[in-house]
Amino acid sequence: MELPAGELQRVEHSNGFRALAFDVFGTLVDWRTGIAQAAAVHGLDGERFADAWRARYAPSMDRVRRGELPWMNLDLLQARSLDEVLLEFGANSLEPEVRRQLVLAWHRLPPWPDAREGLDRLASRFLLTTLSNGGFALLTNLVRNAQLHFDCILSAELCRHYKPDPETYLMVAEMLDLAPSQVMMVAAHKPDLRAAQAVGLGAAFIQRPLEFGPRTAVDRLPDPDATVDATDLLDLASRLGC
Amino acid sequence: MELPAGELQRVEHSNGFRALAFDVFGTLVDWRTGIAQAAAVHGLDGERFADAWRARYAPSMDRVRRGELPWMNLDLLQARSLDEVLLEFGANSLEPEVRRQLVLAWHRLPPWPDAREGLDRLASRFLLTTLSNGGFALLTNLVRNAQLHFDCILSAELCRHYKPDPETYLMVAEMLDLAPSQVMMVAAHKPDLRAAQAVGLGAAFIQRPLEFGPRTAVDRLPDPDATVDATDLLDLASRLGC
Repeated sequence: MELPAGELQRVEHSNGFRALAFDVFGTLVDWRTGIAQAAAVHGLDGERFADAWRARYAPSMDRVRRGELPWMNLDLLQARSLDEVLLEFGANSLEPEVRRQLVLAWHRLPPWPDAREGLDRLASRFLLTTLSNGGFALLTNLVRNAQLHFDCILSAELCRHYKPDPETYLMVAEMLDLAPSQVMMVAAHKPDLRAAQAVGLGAAFIQRPLEFGPRTAVDRLPDPDATVDATDLLDLASRLGC
Repeated sequence: MELPAGELQRVEHSNGFRALAFDVFGTLVDWRTGIAQAAAVHGLDGERFADAWRARYAPSMDRVRRGELPWMNLDLLQARSLDEVLLEFGANSLEPEVRRQLVLAWHRLPPWPDAREGLDRLASRFLLTTLSNGGFALLTNLVRNAQLHFDCILSAELCRHYKPDPETYLMVAEMLDLAPSQVMMVAAHKPDLRAAQAVGLGAAFIQRPLEFGPRTAVDRLPDPDATVDATDLLDLASRLGC
């Protein structure tokens, strides 16, 4: 594969990396399609519902990050925000068991089409871990259900800090007994990558133009601040010589 | 496969299990052969050296368990006991880099011949995790090097308690969002299984007659107190319907 000279120089920098740490929601799996389908089963307007639920995701974690809520894992935060969204959608009569199934829909999200093969190729040269705000059980179930190959699961839950707190990125290096500079964060979200780089990790940007549906602005290529940027995981594998 | 009636009844109990938590050293990998080979490279009497080093394993963790040493992961404990064993073997001149390589030999141990296929079969019905006193990096590296299939890695390091402390077994259930009764501990060591059962987990005993070499007593079949006992992981898979 032909890469321009500047790109080659950036990839040279990747030689010292031993592990790739993957963001999950949006980067590896299509949460919007998965949640919309799970919601539609219960008569809800799937995509609008998925967007409304997802809109509460970052604010709910930010309340934990600011200390306004005690530590709780993502399942618990999602259960709380689900109650609010159902009220908003006039669907407050939904049974507890249905609510539980909707929370568990985040454990069974469909992977993007390139994810499985991309990870398999990247595994040939790098140790692969998740680094997501999803809980440990959620991530373990999600990766198993989607048949994605990982060497281990790391979750915000293990250090009781949510991304982009620096503790999360540093945990990856510490748990794998690597220097931060030997770990590259892989994400479709530039703020996630900038926070990882601020504590010494490398950064791989993956463009996911459809994460929030066809009509919503998302982070786009290029990402000149990243160590490497790519259109998808197959492209990333090629750029990293896998 | 034909099982006697009592055995069938015990296996019936396994229907409620969702996850299997595996001991690693001795149960999945042949630490004695791996360490003996790594030591022999440096002119040491391999098997005798492996046995002497391993003899310090439990006592060093017990010092942490009793609070006589602060928490340190297994790599650090092994590095300390390695210095003592080298002195005992008159090999105190070994360079720091060689010592480091010997400690890292515990990250690259050979699996027992049935381990890979046994895990692959068990994965069809159960979520598979490690639960070992090895550190998180050690286990991640070991499982990757030995090409063993796991859904996630759990280590004593994550809860800063060594087995058989109850915190370790309960951590598995908590991190996977399961009840203790939905988790079965799999080990070649009956005390490990009894400690897991004491806090509500199931227990699968695997016989590993060669763990400590051909001439040393080890736990043998049967284990009437276990939920199920088996000659190896292929036998366990058959007994659990995989």
